[in-house]
Amino acid sequence: MNRYSVILSNVGSCADRFLTAGYDEPVALAELFRRVAEIPQVSGVELVGSWHVTDRNVAELKKYLEHYNLKLVSIIPDHFGQPKWKNGSFASREAVIRADAVNHTKEMIDAAAELGCDLVSLWPGQDGYDYVFQADYLQEREWFSLGVQETCRYRKDMRISLEYKIKEPRTHSYLSTVSNALLTIMEISEPNCGVTIDFGHALNAYETPAESVALLKKYGDRLFHVHMNDNYRHWDDDMIVGSVHTVETLEFFYWLRKTGYQGWLSIDQYPYREDSLEAVRQGVLAMDSFNRLLDRVPEAELDELIRIGNAAASASYFRKLLLDGVQ
Amino acid sequence: MNRYSVILSNVGSCADRFLTAGYDEPVALAELFRRVAEIPQVSGVELVGSWHVTDRNVAELKKYLEHYNLKLVSIIPDHFGQPKWKNGSFASREAVIRADAVNHTKEMIDAAAELGCDLVSLWPGQDGYDYVFQADYLQEREWFSLGVQETCRYRKDMRISLEYKIKEPRTHSYLSTVSNALLTIMEISEPNCGVTIDFGHALNAYETPAESVALLKKYGDRLFHVHMNDNYRHWDDDMIVGSVHTVETLEFFYWLRKTGYQGWLSIDQYPYREDSLEAVRQGVLAMDSFNRLLDRVPEAELDELIRIGNAAASASYFRKLLLDGVQ
Amino acid sequence: MNRYSVILSNVGSCADRFLTAGYDEPVALAELFRRVAEIPQVSGVELVGSWHVTDRNVAELKKYLEHYNLKLVSIIPDHFGQPKWKNGSFASREAVIRADAVNHTKEMIDAAAELGCDLVSLWPGQDGYDYVFQADYLQEREWFSLGVQETCRYRKDMRISLEYKIKEPRTHSYLSTVSNALLTIMEISEPNCGVTIDFGHALNAYETPAESVALLKKYGDRLFHVHMNDNYRHWDDDMIVGSVHTVETLEFFYWLRKTGYQGWLSIDQYPYREDSLEAVRQGVLAMDSFNRLLDRVPEAELDELIRIGNAAASASYFRKLLLDGVQ
Amino acid sequence: MNRYSVILSNVGSCADRFLTAGYDEPVALAELFRRVAEIPQVSGVELVGSWHVTDRNVAELKKYLEHYNLKLVSIIPDHFGQPKWKNGSFASREAVIRADAVNHTKEMIDAAAELGCDLVSLWPGQDGYDYVFQADYLQEREWFSLGVQETCRYRKDMRISLEYKIKEPRTHSYLSTVSNALLTIMEISEPNCGVTIDFGHALNAYETPAESVALLKKYGDRLFHVHMNDNYRHWDDDMIVGSVHTVETLEFFYWLRKTGYQGWLSIDQYPYREDSLEAVRQGVLAMDSFNRLLDRVPEAELDELIRIGNAAASASYFRKLLLDGVQ
Repeated sequence: MNRYSVILSNVGSCADRFLTAGYDEPVALAELFRRVAEIPQVSGVELVGSWHVTDRNVAELKKYLEHYNLKLVSIIPDHFGQPKWKNGSFASREAVIRADAVNHTKEMIDAAAELGCDLVSLWPGQDGYDYVFQADYLQEREWFSLGVQETCRYRKDMRISLEYKIKEPRTHSYLSTVSNALLTIMEISEPNCGVTIDFGHALNAYETPAESVALLKKYGDRLFHVHMNDNYRHWDDDMIVGSVHTVETLEFFYWLRKTGYQGWLSIDQYPYREDSLEAVRQGVLAMDSFNRLLDRVPEAELDELIRIGNAAASASYFRKLLLDGVQ
Repeated sequence: MNRYSVILSNVGSCADRFLTAGYDEPVALAELFRRVAEIPQVSGVELVGSWHVTDRNVAELKKYLEHYNLKLVSIIPDHFGQPKWKNGSFASREAVIRADAVNHTKEMIDAAAELGCDLVSLWPGQDGYDYVFQADYLQEREWFSLGVQETCRYRKDMRISLEYKIKEPRTHSYLSTVSNALLTIMEISEPNCGVTIDFGHALNAYETPAESVALLKKYGDRLFHVHMNDNYRHWDDDMIVGSVHTVETLEFFYWLRKTGYQGWLSIDQYPYREDSLEAVRQGVLAMDSFNRLLDRVPEAELDELIRIGNAAASASYFRKLLLDGVQ
Repeated sequence: MNRYSVILSNVGSCADRFLTAGYDEPVALAELFRRVAEIPQVSGVELVGSWHVTDRNVAELKKYLEHYNLKLVSIIPDHFGQPKWKNGSFASREAVIRADAVNHTKEMIDAAAELGCDLVSLWPGQDGYDYVFQADYLQEREWFSLGVQETCRYRKDMRISLEYKIKEPRTHSYLSTVSNALLTIMEISEPNCGVTIDFGHALNAYETPAESVALLKKYGDRLFHVHMNDNYRHWDDDMIVGSVHTVETLEFFYWLRKTGYQGWLSIDQYPYREDSLEAVRQGVLAMDSFNRLLDRVPEAELDELIRIGNAAASASYFRKLLLDGVQ
Repeated sequence: MNRYSVILSNVGSCADRFLTAGYDEPVALAELFRRVAEIPQVSGVELVGSWHVTDRNVAELKKYLEHYNLKLVSIIPDHFGQPKWKNGSFASREAVIRADAVNHTKEMIDAAAELGCDLVSLWPGQDGYDYVFQADYLQEREWFSLGVQETCRYRKDMRISLEYKIKEPRTHSYLSTVSNALLTIMEISEPNCGVTIDFGHALNAYETPAESVALLKKYGDRLFHVHMNDNYRHWDDDMIVGSVHTVETLEFFYWLRKTGYQGWLSIDQYPYREDSLEAVRQGVLAMDSFNRLLDRVPEAELDELIRIGNAAASASYFRKLLLDGVQ
């Protein structure tokens, strides 16, 4: 059974490029933990380097985790939130920046270990390019793989999970699609290297998220972690889970079961204008409702729909299930 | 209450540019009618010029309509299916082609009138351009409006409805979006000129289909007709109604009620690989399920969701309605 | 002949939602002016409310403008950069916010007048919605038009220009496309109300920017202002002018001439990772090169390409012009 | 130095789903060859199974190739143009169809060998799915790889090249992106298995085509063949080479050189409304102009642009090169 977690910043305030000071007041670390603890279905939390984890506050974090009885699910090192990363982290032209990217990751790995967590999820959002004739794709991708490889080798008991995204903040990311992430993992060739699927990132790359799960199963059982949200396909809108895609989210949860995914399901939303705690709560409840719906539906019926592959039969099935209330 | 109809070709065979002879055997006119009549919820049919309506078969069509007790809902003149239209119909550079576009429309208007129908739905799919520096946008758009205006003036008792689409078969269509259609209608300035919303075309233009309904209400109550299908937003996939967008389709039906739309809801799907009759049947049943769901839900509850505009509250509401089976 | 200007913030530092403190150090107002003055081809500047213009610094701004011999081209009131606008400005559910949006605009109109400028360009980026079942499209759009109308009526000698954009920061904006902007203008029905085309926003809406210029000519000669940049079509990347679209930008400049546009061409780029002054300089030089290329090419040749509309002939022409260096 | 070729059907007539009989008269095989031979820069031709190559006309084809002194560059087996493939070829649920897909490929391999050609380019356009809950991604992808593997093993002296495309005619293709194609090739694990890049397909998947070339170099030097055209990114418009993307096409040609690509450059356009021979001629001349431009530009200058990765410097360089005529 999947457990639910939240990226801690999700219950805080969001900013964008037009409103850089934030849509709401900044929320202190202690308060972020307190808010997450208000959602009974949540048993874990995900932290971001620099934003939440520094080399000096591990003890404080341990205290919060224990106080609220929350499991640390993963740390996301900061490879995107400081000016030094602006032209890349692992794939930067500057050797000192590349070394910094690796070192910061190692620090976060140590922090994770100390906090009883075995997963570090990398989102190298600044590794990529914006313009044509700007990047030496071969050289930069090689640097990227070497750097990540070094972090994988640092501690074999820590799982390093790569979160792909086709664009933003760069117009083109190196770690772009599920298949590109798998190629990178094969190149890195370390057993503790896997993939984080962000449901919305998969949609942005015109992937069917359920098929992305299947691909990770097929090529080495590499699904390590899941971030949940929703969007209108063209951009990473980071909306409340299930608010746009009903059947597609259901198919995603179905394939998580089918492939035996045992990891966490983490909320990754950007509730710019919403009460952030309520938005996260609804995201969690949506995940729970999708799972409980799958509990009620005989698995063999869904297997059979796929076996015959008849679109009219599937349409009939989901119409009755979702619209007619025949559950 | 809305009534359901079908574009006749939808129960036949489809082709595409790689399989021009069709994914299935061609289906004769009589058989198309027979198939439509097999769906009890359907009481009307929509015909396409050239494909179904010629200047010689009106009597035959009347016979089929009467035999199967089907209402003719609209005729879609052929402004797209013959080589002569390849560079445009109403907006063609050639005066003789422009006149032909108008004349064919008048013939279809007469045929519609004779068959007891008061709606002709124009889809000028070849009016547009493919390349930059190819079109004189001002001149061609003027020809377009003048031509359509002439058809509106031909018979004041016939409603002429413009179906917009942002692209395909041209890379750029003139009648591109709901707002562009409204501008064109204002220019034409005839009371019998309105708009056909194709649900999928709205999605392709990054419109929220429910908002497109509202815009047509706002600017002169111009929604004359509706074509239903679904897609993945980027292209006019013409899939079974409701197969991708659940909440968005529900919002569309809600706004049809809210704005007092009394017209037909017509299936416009391209079931390339499906049993076409079964695909249409499922599309019709989906429309009916969306409508019946709205019958069960207190309208005041949905009005209230919109009044407060709280995304978390809406997410909670639709989660319970669609996933938890609380109806 | 067009004159070139710059939105003042373009030579400063940019932030995004992941790096909210900015990719570079903040740049003081005086320094921003000094930088713009370093580009000899630039003779005007565009200011943003709150960011650059307050109710107390008009005298200071006048001093800078005079010192650097820069014309104030427009003021863009702040309807997007403070938390109070998060659920809309002119279209907000709250009457007090709507009044605030109007009042702030009037203040900016007064400031513009005092600084010898006759254009205020509105970008109501927060007016729209994110989720389905969130907005009363009819009510909110009515509020929007009424508010803008009030600002148009405030001073008839000030031109109010509406900048449309299909999304961001909302997932769906009300002022979405060139045609929607024209509908809104017709509703507002004031002669001093027009449109600002942002080249990149047009691309994001799958418009051909040159056609957007033609549409504004056709429906009342309403092109008041132009913002220049470039992108990969799917998102408002705000890149250097001409860096992606060569022929399309040329066609845009050609249609500006053809329709007699006499206004300013303003750089609107977000140089997150670039030396911002150099990025703006290249944008300006690109605009100048497009214009000088059109000076060299006989206008009759381009007119003829459009008259015949032959894609192969156009391809041949631009290949020779751009690739073969036959100019 | 690259040599230029043409897919034979490109000089014929095109159809689409609305005009299935074709935008022009059908063109006989002999005439297609005669037309290609009219373009002096073209020295090769690519043929399509069923459309051009049958089990009975190899002698006739040999005669044409010799008569017009054209090299057979590749055969594209027909896995998309007959109703039997409608639910897939290599990945079909039906074992007999899967066997048929393999057998037809073997026949085309034999035909290619007999005609002195060492490349067969597979475009398995019907292998994929349209709806969610329709496909067993694991099973179908396994069938796909096994089938292609069998064709690779059939004759080791024949190169089998996989052309990826993210969608159309299915809403989702299995062989979707350059990275997915590489994963598939690694799974197949045969040295004679590579990739065909279609420039437009790369754009449709939000790839930078030049980076796709680099990826194929990086992971095993697997670029076997290139199809050239252009589009507006969102769909496979199959327009004349260079008609939309100038700098991006130039970067693509630059990376072909940088990675030592020695293969053919084949036109793959769909000139629905153009004189098809003239459209192909312009496509070929565009390829030649891009190559000749690269001949004139010192390679070290472009290498340096990439080494420093300064967007403003690149913008300056290409502005002078393309717009200012400084070559």
